[in-house]
Amino acid sequence: MKVGVTKGTLLDVFYDQDTHFEIVELPDYDSDLISEIEAIVAGRMSNEQLEKASKLKDIFIPFTGKNGFDLEYVEKLGINIHVSQIHSRYVAERALALALALLGKITFYDKEMHEGRWGKRNFGDRVSWDSIFDKKIGIYGYGEIGKFIHKLVLPFTDKVYAYNRSRKEEVNYVDSLSELINKCDIIFVATPISESTKGSVSKELMMKMKNKYLINVGRGAVIDEDGLYESLKTSNLAGFGSDVWFNYPKKGSNESTPSKHPIEQFNVVMTPHCAGFSMNAAEERYLDTLYQINELAKKKR
Amino acid sequence: MKVGVTKGTLLDVFYDQDTHFEIVELPDYDSDLISEIEAIVAGRMSNEQLEKASKLKDIFIPFTGKNGFDLEYVEKLGINIHVSQIHSRYVAERALALALALLGKITFYDKEMHEGRWGKRNFGDRVSWDSIFDKKIGIYGYGEIGKFIHKLVLPFTDKVYAYNRSRKEEVNYVDSLSELINKCDIIFVATPISESTKGSVSKELMMKMKNKYLINVGRGAVIDEDGLYESLKTSNLAGFGSDVWFNYPKKGSNESTPSKHPIEQFNVVMTPHCAGFSMNAAEERYLDTLYQINELAKKKR
Repeated sequence: MKVGVTKGTLLDVFYDQDTHFEIVELPDYDSDLISEIEAIVAGRMSNEQLEKASKLKDIFIPFTGKNGFDLEYVEKLGINIHVSQIHSRYVAERALALALALLGKITFYDKEMHEGRWGKRNFGDRVSWDSIFDKKIGIYGYGEIGKFIHKLVLPFTDKVYAYNRSRKEEVNYVDSLSELINKCDIIFVATPISESTKGSVSKELMMKMKNKYLINVGRGAVIDEDGLYESLKTSNLAGFGSDVWFNYPKKGSNESTPSKHPIEQFNVVMTPHCAGFSMNAAEERYLDTLYQINELAKKKR
Repeated sequence: MKVGVTKGTLLDVFYDQDTHFEIVELPDYDSDLISEIEAIVAGRMSNEQLEKASKLKDIFIPFTGKNGFDLEYVEKLGINIHVSQIHSRYVAERALALALALLGKITFYDKEMHEGRWGKRNFGDRVSWDSIFDKKIGIYGYGEIGKFIHKLVLPFTDKVYAYNRSRKEEVNYVDSLSELINKCDIIFVATPISESTKGSVSKELMMKMKNKYLINVGRGAVIDEDGLYESLKTSNLAGFGSDVWFNYPKKGSNESTPSKHPIEQFNVVMTPHCAGFSMNAAEERYLDTLYQINELAKKKR
């Protein structure tokens, strides 16, 4: 089996292992070599690129999100998509880190101290922070990532609720996103993007989040962009922490605003969709992907 | 029993409750009223102030640290000191928040994004972060705070070690601080300051912390100040997160540098000794102190 791998991916991980397949190094997805491969390691490809890959039967995404592909078109071509769930725990770690930084005002205090100030610690109007202990936690999307978030918050609180389309795990499910938000103090968004989740954290819901916090590690567009700005601006939402965004920098660029609105002026903690960039995660994800390809290659022999 | 309470403390908490003692409101510790009281709620008093409090038998510190008093002198005067342990869990929460922010580069990424940059996410030299999962955790000082830190890191790793003078808890103890540092990737300092702990995290030890992280929620001076700067400057210590410091702003001021050395230019996350300033913690600590005073007052009737 010929497997296309771009140079950007961790080729060393693949060459270090015994593999049951042949690696075809692709300079990029526009390369003519793409017409020879039966499988590919890729996170994002255009329909034009897929069309050129006439022998392609299996795409291995080295992370969870499938939104780098036109799934209908992929299905029409009869191509299978495989994802790696292994970095779910790092996404959950990012979620907890964002929550602790947002409620704990870590970014605020750290900036103060880098400039020689102390958050008014000697004064009556000192800046205080909020704890996660005994808070009611809501998890929107109770898949691998949601389950890991649950594990990480358990030492802080046993009041954990989940809203999910299917109900196959042992957790307190609620019947609607609205109920989840009403009930809980901190809402973690850990659901993938789909027609039904897009914009589902609506302006109406966020305007009812007075003294409540919203953390997003799912996909940016699960949250209504205008509603987020409005709820932050009017302090109906107490704070927002996110690793996923509405806008991303174009290829080859490091600059862009994450939203069309200036949300950075409010109580927000922002990271650049880097949950998957932990030092260990990259290698682990490629090893997991490699394992999956090997299993498929063995079957096909 | 007459109990002196300064206006700065949460008097409302006391007046809201049934108390078995008389509250004497002190404008400050230099007030002449201090000669009448048998007990006091205070975190810091000079020997001169103590000397004037001729009837004082019990000091109730509404937090853990006793270092606001000259303990030898207090003992000589025959005064008992009571502390509140109740905010230990918030100190532990601060410790985990600092660790996740430091290893997870939350403050770095957040600053980048507030300025429209993305941590080079589109490039091969993207800034990656380090995870706490499966790390070896060392806890220096395994009292109430240390035990809580242990609980909070358990979902991330079961490799937790402790160094403590006494060994009365169920944890893997090591024989020396040096062994703890050799063995572990992240060292949490949660020990009080004393003659034996002062400067005990020495330059020699920190210079051996290549790729290791140090978090301090004990007291600033447990760490050798010159050694910290040297180990950060030479990258022998990978990063430092702290809520406790070498210098504090003078009363009535919000400004001072936390160290005589410019440590803020290195990989550090800094908060202004605010572990006790969580919104719930203040009230909880005073309620706990109140409870302790009440118990004593009942006994004395």
